[in-house]
Amino acid sequence: MTERTMGPRPTLESVAARAGVSRATASRVVNGGAGVRGALVDKVRRAVEELGYIPNHAARTLVTRRTGAIAVIIGEPEFRVFSDPFFEQQVRGISRELTAQDAQLVLLWAEGPDDHTRIARYLGGGHVDGALAFSLHNDGALTAAIGRSGVPAVFGGRPDGPEAAGADVPYVDCDNRGGAREAVHHLVSIGRRRIAHIAGPRDQTSALDRLAGFHDVLPHADPEVVSQGDFTTESGARAMVELLARRPDLDAVFAANDLMAVGALRTLRERGLAVPGDVAVVGFDDMPSVAELADPPLTTVRQDIEGMGRLMVRLLMGILNHDKEAGQEGGAPVSVITPTALVRRASA
Amino acid sequence: MTERTMGPRPTLESVAARAGVSRATASRVVNGGAGVRGALVDKVRRAVEELGYIPNHAARTLVTRRTGAIAVIIGEPEFRVFSDPFFEQQVRGISRELTAQDAQLVLLWAEGPDDHTRIARYLGGGHVDGALAFSLHNDGALTAAIGRSGVPAVFGGRPDGPEAAGADVPYVDCDNRGGAREAVHHLVSIGRRRIAHIAGPRDQTSALDRLAGFHDVLPHADPEVVSQGDFTTESGARAMVELLARRPDLDAVFAANDLMAVGALRTLRERGLAVPGDVAVVGFDDMPSVAELADPPLTTVRQDIEGMGRLMVRLLMGILNHDKEAGQEGGAPVSVITPTALVRRASA
Repeated sequence: MTERTMGPRPTLESVAARAGVSRATASRVVNGGAGVRGALVDKVRRAVEELGYIPNHAARTLVTRRTGAIAVIIGEPEFRVFSDPFFEQQVRGISRELTAQDAQLVLLWAEGPDDHTRIARYLGGGHVDGALAFSLHNDGALTAAIGRSGVPAVFGGRPDGPEAAGADVPYVDCDNRGGAREAVHHLVSIGRRRIAHIAGPRDQTSALDRLAGFHDVLPHADPEVVSQGDFTTESGARAMVELLARRPDLDAVFAANDLMAVGALRTLRERGLAVPGDVAVVGFDDMPSVAELADPPLTTVRQDIEGMGRLMVRLLMGILNHDKEAGQEGGAPVSVITPTALVRRASA
Repeated sequence: MTERTMGPRPTLESVAARAGVSRATASRVVNGGAGVRGALVDKVRRAVEELGYIPNHAARTLVTRRTGAIAVIIGEPEFRVFSDPFFEQQVRGISRELTAQDAQLVLLWAEGPDDHTRIARYLGGGHVDGALAFSLHNDGALTAAIGRSGVPAVFGGRPDGPEAAGADVPYVDCDNRGGAREAVHHLVSIGRRRIAHIAGPRDQTSALDRLAGFHDVLPHADPEVVSQGDFTTESGARAMVELLARRPDLDAVFAANDLMAVGALRTLRERGLAVPGDVAVVGFDDMPSVAELADPPLTTVRQDIEGMGRLMVRLLMGILNHDKEAGQEGGAPVSVITPTALVRRASA
C-alpha cells in the first residue's frame, strides 16, 4: 500500500470539479453511492481514481497502517466456518465495518496445532496490521500464538486458558451469564419446575458462562439435568435423547445455542412430545436464519452478533491509532460486554 | 517466515532418534499421522519442534516463498461464500493441499469494484506469494486487478472478459460443455422430447459453456425453453415457474447446477407434478450435501470440486517453483480441464 504523505492531497472539491458534479453528489458516491444515478457514480469513481483521492476516513487511518489488512482468525475447522451461520453473521459485521474503513479483510481458520504455528508465523511476518480472533477454544494455544506474534488483537468472546489469564487481551463479548439467567428465569416464570440444560463445549467460555447462569437460577439442580453438546444441531438432538432417558418427566430445556435447541426440537417431535405443551424450549443467539424458521419458532436469548463484529473492528482500530501516537503510554485497552435480550416466540 | 539456509538441516533420522521411534513412524507423523498412536504422534511433534525440522516438501518450496501465504479470492459477496456449499468444497480441497504444503491460506472475497482495487493493493503489497481465484464474473475487473498486482495466480474456471482474452492465465476447469451434453443426451435417451434448460448467470463461463452443451445436443431448441437463473435455489424455483408457464407440456429440465435443480424440484412438487414421471430433472455439480439429499435424489453431472481445488494449488506451486529458477524462460503455464461424469439417481 502506497502511503501518500508528500504534496497536497486531492480534495473532495477537486473530485467533484473533475467529475462535473456537485460536492454533495461526490460525497454521496465516496460514501457508498446510495441515491445517485449510475452514470454519475461512474464519473465520480473515475475522477477519484484519476486524482488518487483518498476519503478522509481512509486518510486518517492510513497514517496508522502499514499493510491496510486485518486478519480475521476463526478457531474452528473450515467445515464449521462454512456451515454454522454464527460465523457468517460475525464475519458480515466485521466485513462491513472493515470495508467502511477501507481495510482488507483476510480470513484464516485454525483446525489444529500445526495451524497455530503457521498462523503465528504469518501474523509475525508483518502482513497484517491487526487481528480479530473468535471462537477460540480454551487450550490457550491459539491465544498464545496470537500473543507471540506481537500483532495488536481483539478477541470475540472472553479468552480463557492459562496463557490468556495473565494477558491483558481486549475482547467483545455478550452478557452470556446474564442472558442465560434470563432464559431460565423465564422458564420458571411460566411455571416450569423440571428444567434441563444442554450445555455447549466445555472449552469455550461462552458455554461455561451460560452454564453458570443456569446454575445461578437453579443452584440445587442435579448434575443429571445437564447434558453436553458441542453447539451443532446433531449434538443438541443427541443431548435431548439423553435428557429424556434420564428424566422422562422434564418440562423444559434451555439449550446454550439455537442450533442445539433446533436439534432438541427434532428429538421432541420424533418422540411425539408437544412444544411448549409438554416441554418448553429456549435457545441462545437469536440467529435470524435459525430461530424464526424453527418449528415452532424459538424463544431465545438475543445477542447482536453482527454488531459485536463491528465493535471488534472499532476497538482494534482504536488500539492501532493509539499505538501510533508516539511516546504515549495510554491506558489498558477496554473490553466491551454487550447486553442480551429474551425474545419470546412460540417455543416457551 | 524464517528461511533456514545456513547450517546442516535436521533430518528425519534425527527426529526419529530424538523421539525414540522408528524412521517409518516419524515419517508417518510428519506426513499426517494416520495410523500412529496419539502418544507417539506427540513425541514426534515435540522432536520436530525442538529440532526445527522442516519436511522435505516444505523445504523444497521454502526456497521459493517469501511470505508462506497464498491468497484465495472468491469473486462473490460474503453471504454467497458462506451459504453456497460449492465454495465450502472448493476451499476444502485448496485448504487441505495448502496445509500439506505448509502454506497459510488467507481468504478474501470481492463484492464490488471497491473490493477489486483494495484486493489488487493487498496482493501488490507483497503479503502473499501467489493467488487462487474463482467464481470470477465476466466483467474482467477482478481478473485485471489480479493481473496488475503481478502476483502469480491460478484461476478456478476459465476466465473471460476483454482483459482476460489476451492474458495467458492458467486455470483449472471441468468439462462444462461435455458434461452438459451428456446430461441432455441422457434425457433424450430416456425418451424425453420436450427438454428445457435453466441456465446460470450470463457472466460466468461455466454457465455459458453448459448452455452451449445444451445447444450442441438440441441445436434447434426454441429460446423459450431456456430460462435464466443465478445458481441459487430460489432462482431455480422461479425459473421453473416461468418454464411451466411458457411450456406446460415440458417433460424434462436440465438445470446448470444442483441448487437450481433443487429449486426446480420444489416448484414441480408444489404444482403436483411427479419427478421423473411427469418431468425428469438433471442437475450439475453432484454436491454431496445437495444432490443425494434431494427429494427425489438428483441425477446430475459430477465434477470433482475438491479435487479441482487441490489441482489449483499444485499448478500454482509449480509456477512459483518455476519462477524462482533464475534465468530460465520456461514454457507457458498449462491449464487443466478435468472430466465430468453423469451420476444416475432417481430424478431422471
